[in-house]
Amino acid sequence: MERNNVIRIKCPDEKGLIAKIARVLFSNQHNIIVMKEFVETFTNTFFMRLEVSGDVNEFKLKNELNGVLPNGSDIEIIPRQKKNIVILVTKEHHCLSDLLVRHYFNELHAEIRAVVGNHETLRPFAEKFNIPFHYISHEGTDKLGFEQKVMAAVIQYHPDYIVLAKFMRILSSAFIAAFRDRIINIHHSFLPAFKGANPYKRAFERGVKLIGATAHIVNDDLDEGPIITQKIIPVHHYDDLNDMIESGHEIEKSVLADALKMVLEDRIFVSGNKTIIFA
Amino acid sequence: MERNNVIRIKCPDEKGLIAKIARVLFSNQHNIIVMKEFVETFTNTFFMRLEVSGDVNEFKLKNELNGVLPNGSDIEIIPRQKKNIVILVTKEHHCLSDLLVRHYFNELHAEIRAVVGNHETLRPFAEKFNIPFHYISHEGTDKLGFEQKVMAAVIQYHPDYIVLAKFMRILSSAFIAAFRDRIINIHHSFLPAFKGANPYKRAFERGVKLIGATAHIVNDDLDEGPIITQKIIPVHHYDDLNDMIESGHEIEKSVLADALKMVLEDRIFVSGNKTIIFA
Amino acid sequence: MERNNVIRIKCPDEKGLIAKIARVLFSNQHNIIVMKEFVETFTNTFFMRLEVSGDVNEFKLKNELNGVLPNGSDIEIIPRQKKNIVILVTKEHHCLSDLLVRHYFNELHAEIRAVVGNHETLRPFAEKFNIPFHYISHEGTDKLGFEQKVMAAVIQYHPDYIVLAKFMRILSSAFIAAFRDRIINIHHSFLPAFKGANPYKRAFERGVKLIGATAHIVNDDLDEGPIITQKIIPVHHYDDLNDMIESGHEIEKSVLADALKMVLEDRIFVSGNKTIIFA
Amino acid sequence: MERNNVIRIKCPDEKGLIAKIARVLFSNQHNIIVMKEFVETFTNTFFMRLEVSGDVNEFKLKNELNGVLPNGSDIEIIPRQKKNIVILVTKEHHCLSDLLVRHYFNELHAEIRAVVGNHETLRPFAEKFNIPFHYISHEGTDKLGFEQKVMAAVIQYHPDYIVLAKFMRILSSAFIAAFRDRIINIHHSFLPAFKGANPYKRAFERGVKLIGATAHIVNDDLDEGPIITQKIIPVHHYDDLNDMIESGHEIEKSVLADALKMVLEDRIFVSGNKTIIFA
Repeated sequence: MERNNVIRIKCPDEKGLIAKIARVLFSNQHNIIVMKEFVETFTNTFFMRLEVSGDVNEFKLKNELNGVLPNGSDIEIIPRQKKNIVILVTKEHHCLSDLLVRHYFNELHAEIRAVVGNHETLRPFAEKFNIPFHYISHEGTDKLGFEQKVMAAVIQYHPDYIVLAKFMRILSSAFIAAFRDRIINIHHSFLPAFKGANPYKRAFERGVKLIGATAHIVNDDLDEGPIITQKIIPVHHYDDLNDMIESGHEIEKSVLADALKMVLEDRIFVSGNKTIIFA
Repeated sequence: MERNNVIRIKCPDEKGLIAKIARVLFSNQHNIIVMKEFVETFTNTFFMRLEVSGDVNEFKLKNELNGVLPNGSDIEIIPRQKKNIVILVTKEHHCLSDLLVRHYFNELHAEIRAVVGNHETLRPFAEKFNIPFHYISHEGTDKLGFEQKVMAAVIQYHPDYIVLAKFMRILSSAFIAAFRDRIINIHHSFLPAFKGANPYKRAFERGVKLIGATAHIVNDDLDEGPIITQKIIPVHHYDDLNDMIESGHEIEKSVLADALKMVLEDRIFVSGNKTIIFA
Repeated sequence: MERNNVIRIKCPDEKGLIAKIARVLFSNQHNIIVMKEFVETFTNTFFMRLEVSGDVNEFKLKNELNGVLPNGSDIEIIPRQKKNIVILVTKEHHCLSDLLVRHYFNELHAEIRAVVGNHETLRPFAEKFNIPFHYISHEGTDKLGFEQKVMAAVIQYHPDYIVLAKFMRILSSAFIAAFRDRIINIHHSFLPAFKGANPYKRAFERGVKLIGATAHIVNDDLDEGPIITQKIIPVHHYDDLNDMIESGHEIEKSVLADALKMVLEDRIFVSGNKTIIFA
Repeated sequence: MERNNVIRIKCPDEKGLIAKIARVLFSNQHNIIVMKEFVETFTNTFFMRLEVSGDVNEFKLKNELNGVLPNGSDIEIIPRQKKNIVILVTKEHHCLSDLLVRHYFNELHAEIRAVVGNHETLRPFAEKFNIPFHYISHEGTDKLGFEQKVMAAVIQYHPDYIVLAKFMRILSSAFIAAFRDRIINIHHSFLPAFKGANPYKRAFERGVKLIGATAHIVNDDLDEGPIITQKIIPVHHYDDLNDMIESGHEIEKSVLADALKMVLEDRIFVSGNKTIIFA
């Protein structure tokens, strides 16, 4: 789990960027372990993710990179430390339990700081793994009141990311804006099919032969955020709704785990409504 | 390509159906090679597909089966012969060429009687395989006039099925009604995502990580008919629209070929807007 | 998790079997919910799995079925109750933890009665879920002595199945013979490739582009038993051995869970070195 | 099908390579469209594939790159032109027909110059597409004599690559050595399982649940060359040997087409017995 230093750059594209960046790194004695870049032609944007060896003088390196890159460049130098996450859940366990087990065996590149549930259902499981569980009901209050309580519970842990692990409440724009590009959701369909409620029921009624799951970054519009990962599994005429839900859980947890790995390793750039992923 | 006799039964479900059907077959000296059945509980419908050995006396067998099955039973005894198909195309070759090559090497359980194109583009390829090509332009006429000409071209071949192999015109309800459950279409998305026009463009703009293809039976509503087969392939941020179209073609032809095999082997039942497939 | 009665039949094939079986069931007032059959032509063997409604008089039904089936028929009428399993492990947790979590949430059609480990590593996790953990070291004793202790630990739980969840010791023929067709193993390659030790290392050295996992029934020969399920995932030139192992764990646990579901629902017949699976 | 210039570099790894290479390209006014690199740590080898814009002065650029790279560097600057291929076949058509159809519709980044068959079977199909077909029987001659005739037929076309599209003769080391890393084969199993003859028969007998296909570069040892691409499909207990062969053909042609695309776009490096693929 020892990591290299990660450097991420997003800037307007122009000729010679790679030469300039590589020269700065070389002059600072960094060996480039991995370099991945991509130019999004229709926005003329250059994206790069580097892993470099050696101790990084963050201030000096950023300064020198800024000196050679175009105006408006976005440079991140990522410290070698685990990120903090808080997980929001409702009643279904499969995504939460998958993450808690990985965490327990030190296979998740993150600290799960807390679980927040709008039902009590998953408290015993979370506590079995000594993770604080906050029960905040959405009942007997309005959306604003509910979200304020959730926000208060969440921010005390200073999470780098919030993971919606089958959290069945729709968050307001205000809540989302407070964690821009830092909320990861798992939706139980191959988006954009079956956006919104009851995707399995609608998939069953439509008679599809594949069902899917989609992990995405949450933004203003329900189920419309940048997609990170999608997987599908086949279904058959003899699968009833419960069979489909059961099968779907297998890919939901798998998709969320894969997406979270990409997120926690700083492999994802967001560009408009899309993701660029340096796997 | 030697086939067994196929018997298909669709009827209201009730206790003892299998015993009754099996007894009739046994008393007629037929050995059951394969028997597949399914009960759709929410419509209380029983579906069965059998392959049996021995020469079938169609009239006698149907009569005896009708004698033991509930009212409203639908019994088909399928003759051991290749089906006739007519293929409708526009400009893209990949589905047509796939079917023509299979046909040429006698790997398609059907006779391709003709190809009808609303462009001339694919004539040389069809004629290379000695398949009659009818060019019927959709220009300079209204939809009714166009479809009347297509219909005239098609019906002279008495097709069992019409295959829309990337035929880019939307057929009227009247045309479809004339071939109920007998028109097979390939749509270039994993329906119900990206119904209608330009699915790859919309998939590209949405930033999905999977693209798909769907073979379905055509009914009144565009891209809403019973789904037979779906497949997907991954796409990446570095795939531009042309890459996606190119990759998509690979699964389009594969999905259509798989679906057509199921159709031509009489493995599909339609129930409402769904298919039951005895693979 | 409410199940129908399951009836399983294996017998020499002959004409009229389905009619005879269906008549017996009908005369006993059982409705056939699902019937799946298969004739293995090169052994002339008939296999059938039925789910039927209604209370089963096991003695009477078996007797009547025996009356109409050929000599040498094998009829099982499976009681509606959860099966008992004992899980053998070494140090790796991913298959065990997957099964324990499913069990905890009542999603495994079995009771996990105990875990036996030849290392202490996984004791804390098993005990977190209140499952007895038996530590039996393979050191300081010979194979016979080791297996006798394992056997003693196992048989007190009267398991229907023993699951080798990354148990890294090779069991003797004598041990295996005591649980014929009742030991399920997960092997970390797509058998028959990379039989034996260190499959990931050998896959890495060979430069394959797919790695796999295989769940199979254990018999005399190492990794040669009847295969139940196999899955693969892609690997790339930039994946080192650890990446491959990490990815492989994801499919190992998935394959084992899928296979175990088939086993626990009595969906598998063994025929020679193959399985027949009525999914 | 308009391509960028491709530059490929293979050399001992050392610090600063990317900076040096990028500086040379920048000083020659080339914009880097795509840059992919990989360091194989256990051989300390650096691999890079670049696509650059602008007209390339091959001599000057190679010279300048050699000036900054370590001794023993291998630099290729690939001209923007289609490659020539010759295809060797026996009787099965599916891989050949797939390639001929792509070629006919200008979707293969290569010129198919000729087909050589050790049977006459596929002559009519090749000639339908106006591709010269050379029939060279392996009968009535020894291996050396046979291969000399094949060699004579092949080399008149100056092929960049030879494609074994289900060519069922084993080539001698001498023949292979004459086209080092330039012979592409499709093997009908997921290597290393079922190396050698009759893989489907052996897969059927073993009772595997997946069958595969492998495209690889041919070297001295039968089916042991560097693997380019592998795919699998599921098989079931009810699939007989012919079903498996038929299903297998679908992935064989797909795998060969995918691999050939990688080859023809100069995306593959060979390192020992492995491939590095910059997709």
